[in-house]
Amino acid sequence: MARTKEFDERQVLLAAMLVFWDKGYEGTSINDLEQATGLRRTSLYNTFGNKRALFERVLACYKESIMASLFTAMDSTQDIREGTRRLLNATLDVNYAEQNPGGCLVVLSVLESGQHDTESRASLERTMQELRQGLRQRIARACQRGELPANLDATATATTIATIMSGMMVLGKANFPRTALKKTVNQVLELFD
Amino acid sequence: MARTKEFDERQVLLAAMLVFWDKGYEGTSINDLEQATGLRRTSLYNTFGNKRALFERVLACYKESIMASLFTAMDSTQDIREGTRRLLNATLDVNYAEQNPGGCLVVLSVLESGQHDTESRASLERTMQELRQGLRQRIARACQRGELPANLDATATATTIATIMSGMMVLGKANFPRTALKKTVNQVLELFD
Repeated sequence: MARTKEFDERQVLLAAMLVFWDKGYEGTSINDLEQATGLRRTSLYNTFGNKRALFERVLACYKESIMASLFTAMDSTQDIREGTRRLLNATLDVNYAEQNPGGCLVVLSVLESGQHDTESRASLERTMQELRQGLRQRIARACQRGELPANLDATATATTIATIMSGMMVLGKANFPRTALKKTVNQVLELFD
Repeated sequence: MARTKEFDERQVLLAAMLVFWDKGYEGTSINDLEQATGLRRTSLYNTFGNKRALFERVLACYKESIMASLFTAMDSTQDIREGTRRLLNATLDVNYAEQNPGGCLVVLSVLESGQHDTESRASLERTMQELRQGLRQRIARACQRGELPANLDATATATTIATIMSGMMVLGKANFPRTALKKTVNQVLELFD
């Protein structure tokens, strides 16, 4: 009979996620991971493989928890303008939430891509493409149903919003006050008019 | 008589800059720095002090070379819209130039701030503030001389442009094609109307 795991894998991944998010890939030592997860390195290695494999699992966990919550916020209303406002405010929530390290793990990892292998880099690039694609679909649908001008370039607008989301994570991490970035949210919504 | 340095400090800083920019602070080893600069670690330590002190000099070098070139592009015309277009295109040049590692050393370092001490963090935040301040001054002057609407919020618009610049560095590093980000540049210029 297989021995029951004495820890909750998801809890461990969430704890490891906060370390990579705060310290970056190379900046995260196995000691840091032991301390954050409360597990010995042997347990970590047995469960997740090496540091690179653990990071891959952490990235997947980040997409399912943090990034998915942004589209959940966007889809909590039928109105595309209000939905985009909620998406951007949720992005600010991620940065300014006290329990989070600030910034964004994906943005950090994209910029640290020199530390990652080809597979991780491809996975990071795919994540940014998925973000843009999710935005594009929602904007295109709003154009089709007449909520946005029919001639609005949905792909370009989606790229611009993804750019703003990434940039807000940078300025937020650089300690720009949230009130300043709220004004940027308002300005970006003008793109739809 | 003081011995003449056998190497050009600026060339060494530029070489070290490319390593930090590619690999991040923790990802950069002293071996990497030896290889990139062609200097032994003893020379590096004697000239610049420790890795942290070298990084501070590299950041200053990045501001003087890379970031200053963006405002030079902006100021190469009197027209604020055309100037902003040139600034944003110059930002894309930095990312897509073949000799550069892609992305932006300041954006990367802001996100990696968990790897930096209080002083470096403050210096990075100041750099982002200076970027916003440089934009704000130029936009405010254009409002005063009637080139932009008098009621345009210069501070908010400067924050939005700094957000776009930072975000473009992220999407560029994630291999979004330059043509896609050029459309974002066009959309952002609508903010002025």
